Amino acid sequence: SFSIRQCCDRPKNTNVRISLPAVCFVWQIAMIILFGIFIRYNEESDAHWIEHKTSNNISSNIENDFYFRYPSFQDVHVMIFVGFGFLMTFLKRYSFGAVGFNFLIAGFGLQWALLMQGWFHSLDPMDGKIKIGVESMINADFCVASCLIAYGAVLGKVSPVQLMVMTLFGVTLYAVEEYIILSLIHARDAGGSMVIHTFGAYYGLSISWMLYRPNLDQSKHRIGSVYHSDVFAMIGTLFLWMFWPSFNSAISDHGDGQHRAAINTYLSLAATVLTSIAISSLSQKTGKLDMVHIQNATLAGGVAVGTAAEFMLMPYGSLIVGFCCGIISTLGYIYITPFMEKYLKIHDTCGIHNLHAMPGVIGGIVGAITAAAASKGVYGTEGLANTFDFMGKWKDMMPTQQGGHQAAGLCVALCFGIGGGIIVGCILRLPIWGDAPDNSCFDDDIYWELPEDEENNPPTVEYNNHMRNKAV
Amino acid sequence: SFSIRQCCDRPKNTNVRISLPAVCFVWQIAMIILFGIFIRYNEESDAHWIEHKTSNNISSNIENDFYFRYPSFQDVHVMIFVGFGFLMTFLKRYSFGAVGFNFLIAGFGLQWALLMQGWFHSLDPMDGKIKIGVESMINADFCVASCLIAYGAVLGKVSPVQLMVMTLFGVTLYAVEEYIILSLIHARDAGGSMVIHTFGAYYGLSISWMLYRPNLDQSKHRIGSVYHSDVFAMIGTLFLWMFWPSFNSAISDHGDGQHRAAINTYLSLAATVLTSIAISSLSQKTGKLDMVHIQNATLAGGVAVGTAAEFMLMPYGSLIVGFCCGIISTLGYIYITPFMEKYLKIHDTCGIHNLHAMPGVIGGIVGAITAAAASKGVYGTEGLANTFDFMGKWKDMMPTQQGGHQAAGLCVALCFGIGGGIIVGCILRLPIWGDAPDNSCFDDDIYWELPEDEENNPPTVEYNNHMRNKAV
Amino acid sequence: SFSIRQCCDRPKNTNVRISLPAVCFVWQIAMIILFGIFIRYNEESDAHWIEHKTSNNISSNIENDFYFRYPSFQDVHVMIFVGFGFLMTFLKRYSFGAVGFNFLIAGFGLQWALLMQGWFHSLDPMDGKIKIGVESMINADFCVASCLIAYGAVLGKVSPVQLMVMTLFGVTLYAVEEYIILSLIHARDAGGSMVIHTFGAYYGLSISWMLYRPNLDQSKHRIGSVYHSDVFAMIGTLFLWMFWPSFNSAISDHGDGQHRAAINTYLSLAATVLTSIAISSLSQKTGKLDMVHIQNATLAGGVAVGTAAEFMLMPYGSLIVGFCCGIISTLGYIYITPFMEKYLKIHDTCGIHNLHAMPGVIGGIVGAITAAAASKGVYGTEGLANTFDFMGKWKDMMPTQQGGHQAAGLCVALCFGIGGGIIVGCILRLPIWGDAPDNSCFDDDIYWELPEDEENNPPTVEYNNHMRNKAV
Repeated sequence: SFSIRQCCDRPKNTNVRISLPAVCFVWQIAMIILFGIFIRYNEESDAHWIEHKTSNNISSNIENDFYFRYPSFQDVHVMIFVGFGFLMTFLKRYSFGAVGFNFLIAGFGLQWALLMQGWFHSLDPMDGKIKIGVESMINADFCVASCLIAYGAVLGKVSPVQLMVMTLFGVTLYAVEEYIILSLIHARDAGGSMVIHTFGAYYGLSISWMLYRPNLDQSKHRIGSVYHSDVFAMIGTLFLWMFWPSFNSAISDHGDGQHRAAINTYLSLAATVLTSIAISSLSQKTGKLDMVHIQNATLAGGVAVGTAAEFMLMPYGSLIVGFCCGIISTLGYIYITPFMEKYLKIHDTCGIHNLHAMPGVIGGIVGAITAAAASKGVYGTEGLANTFDFMGKWKDMMPTQQGGHQAAGLCVALCFGIGGGIIVGCILRLPIWGDAPDNSCFDDDIYWELPEDEENNPPTVEYNNHMRNKAV
Repeated sequence: SFSIRQCCDRPKNTNVRISLPAVCFVWQIAMIILFGIFIRYNEESDAHWIEHKTSNNISSNIENDFYFRYPSFQDVHVMIFVGFGFLMTFLKRYSFGAVGFNFLIAGFGLQWALLMQGWFHSLDPMDGKIKIGVESMINADFCVASCLIAYGAVLGKVSPVQLMVMTLFGVTLYAVEEYIILSLIHARDAGGSMVIHTFGAYYGLSISWMLYRPNLDQSKHRIGSVYHSDVFAMIGTLFLWMFWPSFNSAISDHGDGQHRAAINTYLSLAATVLTSIAISSLSQKTGKLDMVHIQNATLAGGVAVGTAAEFMLMPYGSLIVGFCCGIISTLGYIYITPFMEKYLKIHDTCGIHNLHAMPGVIGGIVGAITAAAASKGVYGTEGLANTFDFMGKWKDMMPTQQGGHQAAGLCVALCFGIGGGIIVGCILRLPIWGDAPDNSCFDDDIYWELPEDEENNPPTVEYNNHMRNKAV
Repeated sequence: SFSIRQCCDRPKNTNVRISLPAVCFVWQIAMIILFGIFIRYNEESDAHWIEHKTSNNISSNIENDFYFRYPSFQDVHVMIFVGFGFLMTFLKRYSFGAVGFNFLIAGFGLQWALLMQGWFHSLDPMDGKIKIGVESMINADFCVASCLIAYGAVLGKVSPVQLMVMTLFGVTLYAVEEYIILSLIHARDAGGSMVIHTFGAYYGLSISWMLYRPNLDQSKHRIGSVYHSDVFAMIGTLFLWMFWPSFNSAISDHGDGQHRAAINTYLSLAATVLTSIAISSLSQKTGKLDMVHIQNATLAGGVAVGTAAEFMLMPYGSLIVGFCCGIISTLGYIYITPFMEKYLKIHDTCGIHNLHAMPGVIGGIVGAITAAAASKGVYGTEGLANTFDFMGKWKDMMPTQQGGHQAAGLCVALCFGIGGGIIVGCILRLPIWGDAPDNSCFDDDIYWELPEDEENNPPTVEYNNHMRNKAV
């Protein structure tokens, strides 16, 4: 891949005045046309619901799926826009890009996801239309999450146009791998440890590897936080942390499935907080805590419990998963991220390898083991069939087999993430996307009109020197 | 109106130590007395609910309206207090006033709204009492929203006492126009494009026109953001954006009505993000994005889909509405706001004309067209009657007629907004309200005790000069 | 207690590199073991739910308690982590400690609370296991709230290890007093005015008294806010304020109980905003508002309506409670906090005496009066029995008796708070916990790695002097 890299390295032009509006307009118009052809309300959001209710003996409007899932949807929605957006505001001069481009990607991605996922999952054979409802919105937000995870690896190093391309392909790849994992392989993945986190993280890391910038240390002074940008990032952390139980339970089964997924996630995350803080303190000579760990590693338990959250993981099982992931994720920030940058040429701005990739893989493995260990004693006969969806053509499936299928699903997610990321990374190396030169990364000034006094606020080292020179 | 203006322009005294506490105490005591006389729990929040359940054959507590609407209420509540409050924190030295006065207005307004709306909508003829429940709380928050929109036009230029007066009259006018539009004219307006946004925006703009300050450029250096105040404002933007589907669906029909309103709003807002960003980038020579557009114009799609959200607008219809409004709203910030200030003498601090007035009117028109185009084929016989409430005395209404009624409703909202704003603006010109002189607008120092180091943080141009002088 | 104090005053070592990780690891491992032995899913979150549904004639999954309470749980969760966390970020140099240690305490506390509360309230006599569900999670969050309230009194003056110890004992004491008040005494306390706020506040104040630092004025220059830290604190204030109706209604009865509790809290809080602002303005010579009052006193109405929220307090009754508490709480900040520091040697960083202690006691009294005044006329026969849980061994209870039991409950909360706080305060005086010396309080630099430019941001007086010296 080095030859491709070299052929693409030309002087940088960061003017996106043609390309960004063009991409936004053309793709948005394409969305309108495709929605016009394909997308309709499903029977629970269509005005014919009253007739549907009567003909299906549904006794009350409260049985509409809206009331089962809408509160969870809103929590997931907050995670996507505020959670991911603010988590990335930690850089001293890239908060606009963090929260603003996150907004752009998610706004586009969810539309494309409704189409792609619709074609694979909810195409009505009667009329060839995709029927959407509240669950489709949750799934679209989930799909977008994988692209936002990938954004974390390349934060500050790519242009908004590159992000749009990344999202277009990311959503497409996601829909295909999701279809293979959930429908063809029949793996279960309620909280998306494999489908969302493993895929998204390796997709982003592969792209970052393909876009490796040998001279990135020219922007090194901007890779860091200031006091208030760290507090902003904690807004993202906390909304992700708090609403993760909703994320993992949003599309699991009505009743005990959603209930159990929420409990497991709640517990796993609590354990992660303690072990992240413990390792963070241990890692410093004086026992001081590092905000990077608090902002990120505390979330690893939510990722790792994603697949197994709806299973009978047991409360102590959730704690164990969270316990381990807090340790692993924090150690990842301390040892693996610098190693990857130095030896593997993978620069990972937000450390998604520690927060999403490793915990995602662990989550897939935990899911496989938990599934393989399932028994009628623990689940009940009906409960087992219901939890693992042993119905229709899968009605004779055994839990041990299911464990194997789960493992297969994890492999698919990995392959799609790495393979897709390499291909998309190649495309993004083309010198047409308006990305910044190596000495201007992590700087909002490239793509944003900044407030007039921007050079002085927040006060940086340059500013102080500047002041001193003026004064002397 | 110029003669009125001149007669009211006297030297300014910004001490509100008598007037602000007096208004707060007297009005709050009035609220307590009026609540004591008029307001009681409705049958779903009263302890007699158990008996009501039995006598009405309600099978389960989950049928209590609380469970249909409370999650949406909480989302709306967040929009009112965090959404509107933080959206206005973008000014470099007016964040306290933005979030603090927003809090005051909303806290008072919701009480007065419960009374005013109660008298018009939920007076129990049996005992002359207003019966409140979760839907009343949502409606009170909605009513307050219109006053907070109006605040956006005069942000930084009025005293808290003026804001209280504005809210008192704003809520009163709102309750009347809402009664006329929804009950007398029988227009539908689930998300309040007309009732909330059109009314609120023109109310605020008219007041701002009446309070025009010819020498406001003396405060010009404070009309702008600093880096971190723009990030704070994004908190407001995102919570408004994320919860707008709840806003538009909060009081629509149980079942498919709420479900569909949420989907339509979700889609419209997504499209708005892309076109806002596109126009923002196009408007700058180098393609850089402007935070003002991202913070505001991205929300226009939610406003414009308010009336039609519960109709069968179709997913692509929602996208088209959002597409257009993102363009129009962003262009409004670029061309119309400066024009209005220069030629119409209307200074609009937050650009509510672009975010609420124009999209609100568009929303009213979209609602009228969608209603007029409704058919039994699309809605089903029962669905049509249900969606448009063609019942009781309106049972023979035709969709085309309904379209006309919708248009009439829009006109009423416009008239109340403009007319009410002019009258209230006159009252607010009286030189007794403690507003700031033209050279002290947009400055928290007038009404707030600021932290001791306030002059240094955030560092402003004055501060730098000051430092330089000291140093040399 | 002075002799104990002196014997413990030794030179301070703030290195927590051994103690903090040790506490986190050991206690988390203990949690895993205890959860393994004791904690299981309840019948609504267990995979046997399908069978349970059939055997109990439950017609629909929507009857699962998850759908009654999960939205409220999530709101409470936000209050615990974002609400309490950000409310305490107001100090200029202690935002990391505020939000970070809040996170740590809550993450540990909720696990320990599930165990402690489980042993007292939901131990299944059949198998000796604690069965958890969504209501357990809410109760655990409630329990944690009392420890976070206590943290407010000692913010900036204790080490994270001390906080962990405080939380361990705080949760334990809470579970016992809660059992005595709710189960033995049969007092009702839906929103926890007594159980959570009175207990938590006096627990924290007693600890602060035991840990009194005579030379704290050496850190006086850091006890204050900067402009942006006050805006961050408003995030906490608003999320607490907005979600308080969910807090007070989260565990009240299905149906009218939850509905009424939300309405009462909504109204009480609205009234508090107006009277807090009125008193704040009155208290300054020029009528300016003080952010401390807006951030804190505006919440007092939610505390004070906690016990009575589910009773037929009537809407005007809620307004009266809020009205009074806004006044009392703001006056507390102006007069009582300085008095307590000067004469009682109790330093209360966040003023929890004004926000939680006094309003909590008022809430207990309001609850006792409202209960004593309850009648079958107002509640209905079934409603009365239902609201006050006059069932089983309490079926012949009279409302007046209930009023006495409520008052007894309040006394128990006070005794546990004060007594427990004194004992735990003694333990925390041991010179082994790594707390900061008197001249380094309220400084994140003790326990956190700060961003490199920390000394310059936010610019403080020291910074300016430093610059001036450099320059000259």
